[in-house]
Amino acid sequence: MKKIAILGSTGSIGTQTLEIVRSNEDLQVVALAAGSNVELMEKQIREFSPSIAVMWSETACEELKIRVADTPVKVLSGMEGLLQIAVMEESDVLVTAIVGMIGIRPTIAAIENGKTIALANKETLVTAGHIIMPLAAEHHVDILPVDSEHSAIFQSMNGENKKRVSKILLTASGGPFRGKTKEQLNDMKVEDALKHPNWAMGRKITIDSSTMVNKGLEVIEAKWLFGAELSQIEVVVHPQSIIHSMVEYADGAVMAQLGTPDMKLPIAYALFYPDRRPMDGKRVNFFDLKQLTFEKPDLETFQGLKLAFDAANRGGSMPTVYNAANEKAVSLFLDRKIGFMQIPELIAASMEQHKPIENPKVEEILQAEAETYEFIKQVVN
Amino acid sequence: MKKIAILGSTGSIGTQTLEIVRSNEDLQVVALAAGSNVELMEKQIREFSPSIAVMWSETACEELKIRVADTPVKVLSGMEGLLQIAVMEESDVLVTAIVGMIGIRPTIAAIENGKTIALANKETLVTAGHIIMPLAAEHHVDILPVDSEHSAIFQSMNGENKKRVSKILLTASGGPFRGKTKEQLNDMKVEDALKHPNWAMGRKITIDSSTMVNKGLEVIEAKWLFGAELSQIEVVVHPQSIIHSMVEYADGAVMAQLGTPDMKLPIAYALFYPDRRPMDGKRVNFFDLKQLTFEKPDLETFQGLKLAFDAANRGGSMPTVYNAANEKAVSLFLDRKIGFMQIPELIAASMEQHKPIENPKVEEILQAEAETYEFIKQVVN
Repeated sequence: MKKIAILGSTGSIGTQTLEIVRSNEDLQVVALAAGSNVELMEKQIREFSPSIAVMWSETACEELKIRVADTPVKVLSGMEGLLQIAVMEESDVLVTAIVGMIGIRPTIAAIENGKTIALANKETLVTAGHIIMPLAAEHHVDILPVDSEHSAIFQSMNGENKKRVSKILLTASGGPFRGKTKEQLNDMKVEDALKHPNWAMGRKITIDSSTMVNKGLEVIEAKWLFGAELSQIEVVVHPQSIIHSMVEYADGAVMAQLGTPDMKLPIAYALFYPDRRPMDGKRVNFFDLKQLTFEKPDLETFQGLKLAFDAANRGGSMPTVYNAANEKAVSLFLDRKIGFMQIPELIAASMEQHKPIENPKVEEILQAEAETYEFIKQVVN
Repeated sequence: MKKIAILGSTGSIGTQTLEIVRSNEDLQVVALAAGSNVELMEKQIREFSPSIAVMWSETACEELKIRVADTPVKVLSGMEGLLQIAVMEESDVLVTAIVGMIGIRPTIAAIENGKTIALANKETLVTAGHIIMPLAAEHHVDILPVDSEHSAIFQSMNGENKKRVSKILLTASGGPFRGKTKEQLNDMKVEDALKHPNWAMGRKITIDSSTMVNKGLEVIEAKWLFGAELSQIEVVVHPQSIIHSMVEYADGAVMAQLGTPDMKLPIAYALFYPDRRPMDGKRVNFFDLKQLTFEKPDLETFQGLKLAFDAANRGGSMPTVYNAANEKAVSLFLDRKIGFMQIPELIAASMEQHKPIENPKVEEILQAEAETYEFIKQVVN
């Protein structure tokens, strides 16, 4: 029996994780955490009987306590709650699928307590990879990627000598605006950006896909996760999203993982690693595929991707600023307060004014985030 | 230092194997065997200093003895010579790249003596897979595939639990006659069949590619090599020959190996397994690739492939007859004694008249081969 704790259980990855638990008797949920969706959390508690449930919001926590007073679940709130989940003795795997830098501290605590990490929270490695990866090595803890590209890279390194990796080929659908010019992007509205061609995802990540900032975050994440040099990571636009990513080796062989666009595959891979469990999802039908194509990413038009390479090159706290500025800018765009092209502009301006700190501690990372938020607030108002 | 013996050193695979030895100081050649090319064998002896050299032909052996009388090499001939190479104490790996069923006995002897087998001889598994694979398991000997498709499948199973394999997707270029009708194939000449779109190979294998018998032999070989059911093996026509083959797992993930069409990659993979050595061959440039496409094989037109499934389904000595009939028919076609479409016709007729023997012994396999040759001789004359 594998015991799992899920941070972000009411989100897209969280609910799909629970679907997998539902159809596998040897998985047991021991803790759940969510932001403010009390109604769904109550349902999840009644179905999965975790011993701890955490609501990030204090008021949501109070409401949940009343709703589930008839159950034995312990209800907590905020960072204190997340940390209790991270260190609880009964759990084997921590699925961290919450959005934002609040994922960092629970991840560190879980690693220190020897938990396997199934990582769906991008910010953790983007901002604190220099802390997380050495810590995981020290505690002999696996960091198993949950998003589809990194899982594909991870699977393509299965059984391989990591020292023979010559290149990581991170595929990108190119998003809904692939092939568009800068001028055309100027006029893009929220509705346009929310139409992703292949994947059904949350609003924030869908916008990130349209700016290619999502791919930028993945580049930085891959650098940490696979201990790669930035120069070894190449983004390959592959509009059909069938090849989920590839690894080229020193002998010239390229290993790739392919699949239908179904997040349950990488989630299950992380939960059952190194095993693969039978899943009833759709299979790739090669005879139905018209073609697989590949393009160079347009870094001139999609500055959001180019800036990620810049941020990773600068290192230290710069990726934090890249991420925080994007987070705020996307939020402003979704609220229709800024135009589409202002997203990369705000990221660039934030990075411009930031003096990076080398090897920032968690407090310094959070400080850089707060300062970036403040900077954008001043610029936009 | 890895010590290798090469059966078929003057052929395409053999010479490419020696190129790899040339650029890797920790590989040493201890024995070479060839058919009748005395001139090239002499050069190879002078460059690589094997302790044994074998010529299949007795007269070639006598000539070689005179040519290399100034060297310490021991020159032998025929099956006796091949068997001496197979069992010689100093060798670690036997590369078996000779053509035809003469590869069976040396392979068995090498396995019994604990040698790793780098297998490029298709006939060995097609005709004697039921003997070879259990024997290799018994002696804990690796059978490492050298041709590009099986190497790709093998690489796609690296680090994986074989029990989770749901499907082997064996890719095929489709050969020079892909898309042609039966009527068009009727008129095909030797020159047409020898034009392979992607791979530079020997004459026999190029004709086998044009009839898709080559893929048929690979299907039977894959069945033995990977312990798969015939129903788990699917041929996928992929004209660009970039994806060298794929494996689908129980969770729906597909692992694939891609590369440029360069036989040195699978050869080196077998020689250095489980390591990968830096190679300076061409890399796949995804931005130069126009597209990757996939089609169902046309089993109606390419009866040669369909017959392989029939032969494998019948089992026993039937795959031997399939292979022997094809060998003779291709030879007659190359001599312009029969038309292109008579190749599958002769295979079908040979299989039709054969009463298959279950679990044939080596003698019975060779007997089935001889009978098939005799049958075709009578039919064609």
